[in-house]
Order: sequence, then structure tokens, then C-alpha cells
Amino acid sequence: MSDIIRALGELGNRVDARMLELLAVGASKSFQEVVFHQVKAGGKRIRPALTVLFCEAAGGQEKDALTAAAAIELVHNYSLILDDIIDDADLRRNVPTTWKKFGLSFGILASTHYREAIEEAILQSPDPLTISRLIADGIRELIEGERLDVLFEQIPKNVEYVDRHRYREITRSDYETMIGGKTASLIRTACEVGVVCAHGSEALRKAAREFGWKAGIAFQMADDVLDLFAAEEELGKKVGKDIYEHKLGNAVILQALERLPAPDRKSLLEALHASQPTEKQVTKAIAVLRDSGAADQVKKNTEQLVNEARQALSRFPNQKACKLLEGLVTFISQRTF
Amino acid sequence: MSDIIRALGELGNRVDARMLELLAVGASKSFQEVVFHQVKAGGKRIRPALTVLFCEAAGGQEKDALTAAAAIELVHNYSLILDDIIDDADLRRNVPTTWKKFGLSFGILASTHYREAIEEAILQSPDPLTISRLIADGIRELIEGERLDVLFEQIPKNVEYVDRHRYREITRSDYETMIGGKTASLIRTACEVGVVCAHGSEALRKAAREFGWKAGIAFQMADDVLDLFAAEEELGKKVGKDIYEHKLGNAVILQALERLPAPDRKSLLEALHASQPTEKQVTKAIAVLRDSGAADQVKKNTEQLVNEARQALSRFPNQKACKLLEGLVTFISQRTF
Repeated sequence: MSDIIRALGELGNRVDARMLELLAVGASKSFQEVVFHQVKAGGKRIRPALTVLFCEAAGGQEKDALTAAAAIELVHNYSLILDDIIDDADLRRNVPTTWKKFGLSFGILASTHYREAIEEAILQSPDPLTISRLIADGIRELIEGERLDVLFEQIPKNVEYVDRHRYREITRSDYETMIGGKTASLIRTACEVGVVCAHGSEALRKAAREFGWKAGIAFQMADDVLDLFAAEEELGKKVGKDIYEHKLGNAVILQALERLPAPDRKSLLEALHASQPTEKQVTKAIAVLRDSGAADQVKKNTEQLVNEARQALSRFPNQKACKLLEGLVTFISQRTF
Repeated sequence: MSDIIRALGELGNRVDARMLELLAVGASKSFQEVVFHQVKAGGKRIRPALTVLFCEAAGGQEKDALTAAAAIELVHNYSLILDDIIDDADLRRNVPTTWKKFGLSFGILASTHYREAIEEAILQSPDPLTISRLIADGIRELIEGERLDVLFEQIPKNVEYVDRHRYREITRSDYETMIGGKTASLIRTACEVGVVCAHGSEALRKAAREFGWKAGIAFQMADDVLDLFAAEEELGKKVGKDIYEHKLGNAVILQALERLPAPDRKSLLEALHASQPTEKQVTKAIAVLRDSGAADQVKKNTEQLVNEARQALSRFPNQKACKLLEGLVTFISQRTF
């Protein structure tokens, strides 16, 4: 596992340098301070690692994929800047979010600039037309996931349109559409773009998509567990975040609602529907969730997905890169970061 | 002039239909309600008309340019959605702005979706790589113009970064950089993209850029006059809007500040610096501006630019299209809409 972490760190540095170069295009010195902020806050750079590893797995080299990998990670960071505005978030990775630090206007301008840095990267990649299509589709799915995430929130927003379209109940299929869009689609795109950078076959692109989709769902489920149970200092997020934010769209919560006895179910829903849940309510909700055994079931489902993802790797010519991909998918599904 | 208005109206209908098709890609029915709103609010569709006319002027046909023209008008509408969030605007063309009607989250999601509809249009255009590059550069200049516009506002924003970078004085060159970015760059892009759709020569592309840049500056100057003096019902905006919004970046205001006697200059600056100028202050400021003769000077400068723009048309093979372009640039520089 330490191999994976070291490899991620080294590749991350190269991707970061490329992202800053791309963001600097057309940005004045003082605007660079704004647009660099999100990237400089750091991150594990898992998505660009997938792009580079799939390029290598399909017979290409890192240099063929590095710019496209930067595009993918810029898409992720673009979505984070916007997500933080939409969620009214103050902090990410223990530093102020872009829009809190620079104001709403500059938060929006920064995000818009990210999209053009992504375009810049696409135009410099080995197959701009194919990659542009994949990334545009990926971003649209991200928007759809984010749209559902907003509509899954349980508190009225005093916006007629939003309240009219708000989901009162969320099925497991709704949940999968939401996290498919918010998380799995970009991970799937990251994998497929890697194969495109190596000019790989359609069969390999399909296998990469399959791997990415399953790994992406597994990744989000692991994140759902963390969002509820991980300690604050460990995660850089608030414990019980999804409860404070009234998000029914969490795999553990959905699993628990299916299996809890009626009184526990009721107290959990009360916390989720409270406009400002008290710390006590949240603590109680977390205890109920913990005792339900829902997290164990979610972890089991996650492992199953990881195994299925691994099976998609058998077709690739470079099995050394595939070993790293296997390690990476295990790492992200067991993540405690 | 009525020929121009009729031609604009007919072309506008075709461009609108194309824009709605592009926006529908990947948008669920209920999200279409959100993303269609801005386009359905209407507009004169001057930018796509420039794209189509320059395609024809360079020897192409409307059908070669229609999708790229829709891309250009989508860029404009993308910027309007964001501009309205940044300016905290309630109304545009007498209907609620997207973010006021659907809330901030959906305003942001809609704008993000616009960018991918633009990508869709680029990918369907006759020369996607060239047009992608031109549009990405154009959007970056738009962002730079918007960034300056925010920093030209004279009221502290209580955001440390913004207040630190706020302009205390604005030179005419600062003003030109700002309107160059906010208005002229996209008009220039609209013209050049038209020539690209006809696979025109580099010399024709250069002439189209020159025409577009000068027409764009002229267009913005005409807009500055309107923003101060046009009647509310005529314009669909508030009279003296730029004064309420503390914008020094208006050609008439800059011209007046250069020529006004000290007491008038002082009362004008007081209105511009007041955190909430009273109606009386604004009325006084407008009277001072009116008496200064600044608007006449701005109109003279506008005419000069229009004449220079016209001269760039002499090289084009299809002079019939050029006649319409001449009419169009006259129309936008004298506009009272």
C-alpha cells in the first residue's frame, strides 16, 4: 500500500505543476492568486493517477497522458469550487473555500476560468476531439448528479422551483443515479481518457469505463461511511456532515432506513428533517446508524464492486500498470483519508 | 434599417431553435425549464448575426455557420447568467433573472450546463479545433473584463481580497481593457468564427477581427449612454443603473470627469461613492452628466469607430453581405433598444 501512496504523491506533483501552468494561461498575476487557491489546497490526485495508469496499461507512456490527466483533475477541482458555493461551505481540507476567501463574484469567475483551463488542456492532448466529447459528457453528468444532490436536501429552500422538485423519498436507484453523476462518471472518464491517450482499442476503452464506473461507486460509498463516522481532524470535514446538511443521499443512511426498527427510524428521520439539528440529535443519529450495522453492509457491497472492477483489468497488455490499478482501487475503497 | 431588423428577427428564430436543441442535450425535462429560461427571455441576437454574415461575406452559406453562431450566442447568454449573479440582478428584459427565479444553486448549475452546450456546438461546427481555441480565448477575455468590472465598483465589498485590489481611479485605458473584455472580445470572436466557418483566409480573419473589435467598442459606448439616459420602460433596465451600481467604468462618466468643473465633478463622485445613493443624488448626477456634453463626445467617438470598422469590410468577396454588416454596425451604434 505504501507503494501506491508514494506513486500517487510523485505523480501528484507532476500533475499539480501542469495544472498551474494551464491555469496561468490568460490570468493576470493577481487573478492567479484566486485561481491557484483550490489546486494548492491539495488532494490525493486519484483521478489523474487513473488516467496515467490506464494509458500505461494500454501500452502508452505517462508523458502521453499527463496533460489530459491534468484536465481531469481540473474538472474535479472545478466541481469542488462550485460545490462549495452550492453547499455554502466555509472550509475544505481545513482551508477556506475559494468563494469564502475571495467572495462570491471571484468564486464564480475562478470556476469559469477553470473550465477554460480544461479546454486548454484538451486542445494540447493527443486526441482533442475524442477527449473533448468525453469530458463534456462527464461534466454534464456531474451537473446532473449535483442537481439531484440539491433536490435530495430535506430542508425547504424558499425557492418555489426547488421546493416543487424536492425529493421526499429517495430510492436506492435515485441514490445510484446521484452518486453515479457526482462521483463515478468523472472516475469513469478519467479511466477511459487514459486509454484514449494511448490510442487504445474500443474494447480497452469499454473495459476502462467498466472499471471506472464500479471503482467510482465504491469510492463514493467509502466516502459516505467516512462522512458519517470519521473523526473531524482526520477528514478535514465535520463529523455527521451529511446529517447537518440534511442529505438523504448517503448509502449508510439509506441502508439503515431499510433495516431499522420504527422508533430508531423515526429519530433518524427527525434529525434529517430538522432545519437546524442540535449536536445531540446528530450524536444520537450517528449512534443509531452505528448500531444498525448498515455501515458493515455498505462495506461489503463496496468490496464486491472492487472485485468486479478488478476483473475488467484482465484484457490490458501492460499487467504491471494493472497491478498498480488494483492497489489503487483497493486503497480508495478502504480509505481512511 | 427595417431590413436589418427583419433580417435579425428571422435569423434570430433559427438561432434560438438551434440553441434550445443544444441546451436540451443531457438535460432532464425539469432541468430544461431552468436552462431554457435565459434564452427564452429573448435578445436581439446581434452576435450570431455577425457570425452568419461574416461567413456569407467570406463566401460561405448560412447553414455552414448556424451552429457556430448558436455557440457564440450561448457564450453571451452564459455570461449574462453569471453577470446577473455577480451583480445581484433581479430582472433582465423585464423578467426575473435565472438565479432569482430558480435560486443560486440552480443558477450556477444552469451556467455550467451552458458551457457544455457551447462545447456541443463547437464539436458540431465545421472546424472544431480552431473554433474551440477562439471561443476559449474569448471566454477568458470575458472573465478578465468581468473581473475588472467587479474591481471598478466603488463600494467596499467586505472581502479582503476584493477591497485590496479595488481600483480607486480608472483611466481611459483601464476602461478600454474592461469593455474590450466584457463586450468587444466576444463580438470580435463572433466575426472571426464566421470567416472560419467559410474556411476563409487568414487575411479575411484578420479583417473580421478588426471590424469586430471596433464595432464592439462602439456597441459598448452606445450601451453606456443608454445605461445612463434611456427611459426605464424602453430599456428594461433601471435608469442611472451604473450610478446605483457605483460603476466608474462608463464612457460618459469618464468623459464627464475629464471636463466637468470642480463642484460638479465633486457631486458626481459623491453619488458614485455613496453606499446607497438616493434617487435625488442620482437625478442630480444624471443632470450634471447631461449638461457636461460628455454624451455627445462619446457619440462622436462611437461614429469614428463605426467608420473605421466599415473600412475593414472592403476585402470581402461577397459585398452584398457586407452591406448588411454596414447596416448592422450602424444600427448597434445608434441603438435605442
